[in-house]
Amino acid sequence: MSLNGLLEKSPATLPILQATFGLERESLRIGKDHRIAQTDHPACLGSRSFHPYIQTDYSEAQLELITPIAHSTKEALRFLGALTDVAGRSIDKSEYLWPLSIPPKLCETDIHIAKLEDDYECYYRKHLADVYGKTLQSMSGIHFNMELGKDLVASLFKESGYQSIIDFKNDIHLKLAQNFLRFRWLLTYLYGASPIAEEGFFSKTLAKPVRSIRNSHLGYVNHKDIQVSYESLEKYISDIEAHIASGKLIAEKEFYSAVRLRGSKHVRDYLTNGVTYLELRTFDLNPFDNRGITQETLDTVHLFVLALLWLDSSSAIDQDITEASKLNDKIALSHPLDKLPEDAPVEIILLAMQGIVDYFELSDYYQGLIDAIKNQIEHPEQTIAGRLLEEIDTLSLESFGQKQGQAFHDYAWQAPYALKGYENMELSTQLLMFDAIQKGVHLEVLDENDQFIKLWHGEHVEYVKNANMTGKDSYITPLIMENKVVTKKLLSKAGFPVPKGEEFADKAAALRYFSQIKDKAIVVKPKSTNFGLGISIFKESADLTAYQKALDIAFAEDDTVLIEEFISGTEYRFFVLDGKCEAMLLRVPANVVGDGKHTIAQLVEMKNQDPLRGRDHRSPLEIIDLGDVEKLMLQQQGYTPDDIPADRVRVDLRRNSNISTGGDSIDVTDIMPDDYKTLAAQMARAVGAWVCGVDLIIPDKSLPASKEEPNCACIELNFNPAIYLHTYCHEGPGQALTPKILAKLFPEL
Amino acid sequence: MSLNGLLEKSPATLPILQATFGLERESLRIGKDHRIAQTDHPACLGSRSFHPYIQTDYSEAQLELITPIAHSTKEALRFLGALTDVAGRSIDKSEYLWPLSIPPKLCETDIHIAKLEDDYECYYRKHLADVYGKTLQSMSGIHFNMELGKDLVASLFKESGYQSIIDFKNDIHLKLAQNFLRFRWLLTYLYGASPIAEEGFFSKTLAKPVRSIRNSHLGYVNHKDIQVSYESLEKYISDIEAHIASGKLIAEKEFYSAVRLRGSKHVRDYLTNGVTYLELRTFDLNPFDNRGITQETLDTVHLFVLALLWLDSSSAIDQDITEASKLNDKIALSHPLDKLPEDAPVEIILLAMQGIVDYFELSDYYQGLIDAIKNQIEHPEQTIAGRLLEEIDTLSLESFGQKQGQAFHDYAWQAPYALKGYENMELSTQLLMFDAIQKGVHLEVLDENDQFIKLWHGEHVEYVKNANMTGKDSYITPLIMENKVVTKKLLSKAGFPVPKGEEFADKAAALRYFSQIKDKAIVVKPKSTNFGLGISIFKESADLTAYQKALDIAFAEDDTVLIEEFISGTEYRFFVLDGKCEAMLLRVPANVVGDGKHTIAQLVEMKNQDPLRGRDHRSPLEIIDLGDVEKLMLQQQGYTPDDIPADRVRVDLRRNSNISTGGDSIDVTDIMPDDYKTLAAQMARAVGAWVCGVDLIIPDKSLPASKEEPNCACIELNFNPAIYLHTYCHEGPGQALTPKILAKLFPEL
Repeated sequence: MSLNGLLEKSPATLPILQATFGLERESLRIGKDHRIAQTDHPACLGSRSFHPYIQTDYSEAQLELITPIAHSTKEALRFLGALTDVAGRSIDKSEYLWPLSIPPKLCETDIHIAKLEDDYECYYRKHLADVYGKTLQSMSGIHFNMELGKDLVASLFKESGYQSIIDFKNDIHLKLAQNFLRFRWLLTYLYGASPIAEEGFFSKTLAKPVRSIRNSHLGYVNHKDIQVSYESLEKYISDIEAHIASGKLIAEKEFYSAVRLRGSKHVRDYLTNGVTYLELRTFDLNPFDNRGITQETLDTVHLFVLALLWLDSSSAIDQDITEASKLNDKIALSHPLDKLPEDAPVEIILLAMQGIVDYFELSDYYQGLIDAIKNQIEHPEQTIAGRLLEEIDTLSLESFGQKQGQAFHDYAWQAPYALKGYENMELSTQLLMFDAIQKGVHLEVLDENDQFIKLWHGEHVEYVKNANMTGKDSYITPLIMENKVVTKKLLSKAGFPVPKGEEFADKAAALRYFSQIKDKAIVVKPKSTNFGLGISIFKESADLTAYQKALDIAFAEDDTVLIEEFISGTEYRFFVLDGKCEAMLLRVPANVVGDGKHTIAQLVEMKNQDPLRGRDHRSPLEIIDLGDVEKLMLQQQGYTPDDIPADRVRVDLRRNSNISTGGDSIDVTDIMPDDYKTLAAQMARAVGAWVCGVDLIIPDKSLPASKEEPNCACIELNFNPAIYLHTYCHEGPGQALTPKILAKLFPEL
Repeated sequence: MSLNGLLEKSPATLPILQATFGLERESLRIGKDHRIAQTDHPACLGSRSFHPYIQTDYSEAQLELITPIAHSTKEALRFLGALTDVAGRSIDKSEYLWPLSIPPKLCETDIHIAKLEDDYECYYRKHLADVYGKTLQSMSGIHFNMELGKDLVASLFKESGYQSIIDFKNDIHLKLAQNFLRFRWLLTYLYGASPIAEEGFFSKTLAKPVRSIRNSHLGYVNHKDIQVSYESLEKYISDIEAHIASGKLIAEKEFYSAVRLRGSKHVRDYLTNGVTYLELRTFDLNPFDNRGITQETLDTVHLFVLALLWLDSSSAIDQDITEASKLNDKIALSHPLDKLPEDAPVEIILLAMQGIVDYFELSDYYQGLIDAIKNQIEHPEQTIAGRLLEEIDTLSLESFGQKQGQAFHDYAWQAPYALKGYENMELSTQLLMFDAIQKGVHLEVLDENDQFIKLWHGEHVEYVKNANMTGKDSYITPLIMENKVVTKKLLSKAGFPVPKGEEFADKAAALRYFSQIKDKAIVVKPKSTNFGLGISIFKESADLTAYQKALDIAFAEDDTVLIEEFISGTEYRFFVLDGKCEAMLLRVPANVVGDGKHTIAQLVEMKNQDPLRGRDHRSPLEIIDLGDVEKLMLQQQGYTPDDIPADRVRVDLRRNSNISTGGDSIDVTDIMPDDYKTLAAQMARAVGAWVCGVDLIIPDKSLPASKEEPNCACIELNFNPAIYLHTYCHEGPGQALTPKILAKLFPEL
């Protein structure tokens, strides 16, 4: 049964691009001295015995970042970016990740085999050291795993006329592997990025830069007498098994092919279970991208693999592969500015790629990828190796590696409150995702717009929304907190201080109530609004006209209006988790503090330089605007933006203390007296909350607080408190809360 | 220290109306034969050992309805109405409650002492039978408990100059009790409603009707030699204690005063703890109100009590009380059309009431109450006794009692899906509240508009919103169900059938997807809408223009649109509770079925006569309209409203099956095969739901269903399924679900 022409006879509506992807990227940790780090694998990365995302490869200093299965190259690369981000911020801050496949200058003695728990893995690594040497093992690269989509395979199977899906999958993957080996030299040309070996890497230094040492026979390859036939799956299996039987290989995985058939633990199982995916192992680290590979590379490779399926099979495959290997070696060891050799059959593979684009009417983006290949074939200086050439200084890339490595490291630390690639998600969720990745808890984003994630470890699954809505809270608890009237009733009944008040469903009744409150400080507010809308505060008693107006404003927001006692004092947010008060925050209105030299406008400008300030909730603090509201506020205090406030004089720019309008967050966890923390925790417990933001008004926090004599009042309980506010603050150390949430969700870790 | 003039020297802004109220109403159960019921207390009312609301008083057939403490007379009466409703529907349907204080004709042997668990209570009742006779014990009345508001008492205390709050409370309550006894004859005049005794009630029949046997010396009073002084609290206590010591009374509660001081178990404790409230015990059942008392009566009594505080104390109180008692007896035994005696000092009490209204600027409503009293003083025929006179037939009120009792009983059954007084709440919550009251679970409405209630038994508290949102579900579960994408991912991952689909955040991508679905039946819908808005269904494949239009409609409702496989079949709602499928519902579009005689318009009219149909979700089914939508639908089928459909021909009036647009609910619980129930229950479990409405599309329910071969698909999980839909159905027996929820919330009951 032939697979030739299978795509051309399939309908053009075939979901041709449907596939799943996984990436594995190795990288060396480098110390302050720019040599391979001698430190242990970071403890904050949890246990390597189960970590699904961040492992050590050969050596203790060689991180391996492993993405989960992704349904698009974009998703895979995004996750790799996040892993890179987490790894960068998990290693010692003085270290960085080496951005090149070829390590910096090193001594074999500086390479320590990874300290894994598994005895066999240690034994295996020792064997590799004996056979290949530790130096060669310290090269890094990227493996690209790809599985054709289930619907795509099902459709192709239907078209193929095969009887057995196992046979079909085995044949299709064998064909892909064969053709990959026939044409891999193109990828070496385009993506080769190991042009030199640092001094001492080889016994004999290379005389001139090349494309890819790692993809040449000098790279990480088996001994010449390890030959494996690709003519049939049976031959492939029996060859590998024979090498193991003869002791030439100690494990199947020691067979270092540029492409591996994957899906079962042992190759023989493919005959019964079928091959399910391919592992392409040829990619040098691209040092121009912090993730080591670009989106365009991934999509080009995807298209390349589809082209391998479009191409006919060879009738003399082992011979073809041998010749292709020679061609690959030649290209790998050619100078980075050398063009492809004349005999490279580049038209064949390009036509096949074009065939895919045309037949399946792929978008211009894919056409652009082909055009880019053609351009790089014309212009070797535009390939990665070509571009790297300029960075080589006396046959060394060390200073370039240091510069890029440090730049990528700085980038990881640039916005430490965010998780790269997931910046559109809410900050608290990004923090929790960071922690999950760091600790090796499996993570899946179920709904990005809804901040809905799935976390799991073994059989234990937790779903989390907004980083704090979990299965730990009972459903009725947030419903209680959502309803201000119910919250107050419960707190009051339990003996906690809440502002006294009444609820009114009609304005006439609320007006009649005036006689009872006309001498008091009151707040008039809609029952359910959460954004401060429709609230009027009378810090001294209101007159009837003002009261009437306040009612109108509040009734415009809700059918029911609350009239509450106003309690003057400072409002603090207490974050309570599982019965314990973990963080306290003070929010103050947008302001600047004078220095006697700069104008208010300049002070605003200077304050906005804080990297924690940004726009649209993408940062823990917001840019302070100097708009109409702020200017009016200044005017009321007798200022213009061009005035120069005296030294240490604080000028408020807003009346409200919302962070979203430029307010400052001040972490007061360490200076808040314990009795207030205890009281806040008790309040959360009174409504049964696991996560709760307790807003307390405290007139004077030097006074003692207790249930009997509270010296404070609770004005609100929040079931969705913004965690990130506590973590990255304008002032104060900040409190990391998501690690505590994660630890409570997964106490077994 | 004198309390005279205390109110006049207090500020007029005093919260004078602040008070709490509690009502206790007795009523005899009457059997089919219109005699006192010989049946046991209804088993469905749970255990009398703890029931807070529905007890038995003296005899097994004498229900006692007890409201919780309410913050207004309105709230107290509303709860009494609900208790009356629950009691009416809990007794045997052939029984009813006797609406009069004086029982129908009876034999002492038909009166069975209540079968209580408490031995002392049984002994006490036997003693009463010996001393007073069982017949007298079978009279019923209403006790009105009233406590002045805490702020009111605190303000008055401040004004009073008293040092001790206990002394103050004791003095104020003693004053109220004294003045009550001085002026209670006015209440007897206004509200007396026991004009005759049925034959055999007394050994000697009364010659003519009177105002109130029950409030006269013929009523339920202690022996003449039980005299208790009200001169001081000390005297009051020592007198009562002396009567007990001498054996004239066997318990403090055997002292039947028209007013009781309350707040401690033993009278002596008042000296240290203070009296907290008054129990006014004079009220005959008002047979013109199903609750036995009216709103106006309650508010008049409230004003009356405040007037007692306004009045000065008497300097010779015991003498005054003796005279007032004589006056009261005279009025009680006077003819219902007799005016008040000339010597009744009615001006004093009326002026005091007027004083309250004027000084505190009470609303016109209260002025109206005073005017109504004056009117009734002028027109005895307008008092309750005066009105009852017309109903007396040869010195018997039996036929009137039977008529009224039956009418009130019918009223309780009139809308059995609702709870009287709480009809503004959502029907499911009304059902659950009914069940809670019936079983004796404490109930408090925390927020009426938000359907938020508190239930408790002993220390065990449960909060419930919408009758199904409880602490039994974890918070993340409804969040999962609220998000259609997440729900589908979880169900699909767990191996359950869901329609295949894709999610699109931009229209261009959704348009490109057209090539993949152009031959399929699809649904285009906004991601989050829950009201069927923005949904387009293509039962056959869509053309591009229609597809494009459907996208526009869906994107108008939400930022994200789902395009899903359309699965044809019938949609059923499965209600799952705690892992078990408890009810299944089929909803069909508004329709009429022809009889070959009536026009469509007439058939609609006839169908709308169903008492289950109403408007605005106040009833389990909605009135069918014949509006534009329905007429268009008729036109499309070739009908006009004036056509007469043939016998048994069903004419649909709507395309959608929503109950809210007149659709029919059909309970299919008993005919749905078990395997679908199992599957639905498994689906709910897969998302961890305790309460869940599973919507399944079933093409043919005669086919077997299993996870492996589902023969159905789940299109939605609902975290807030409307329970009442399953309970009162257009067709089918209906399933009572709230009792199951209640039983699971309180398994100890």
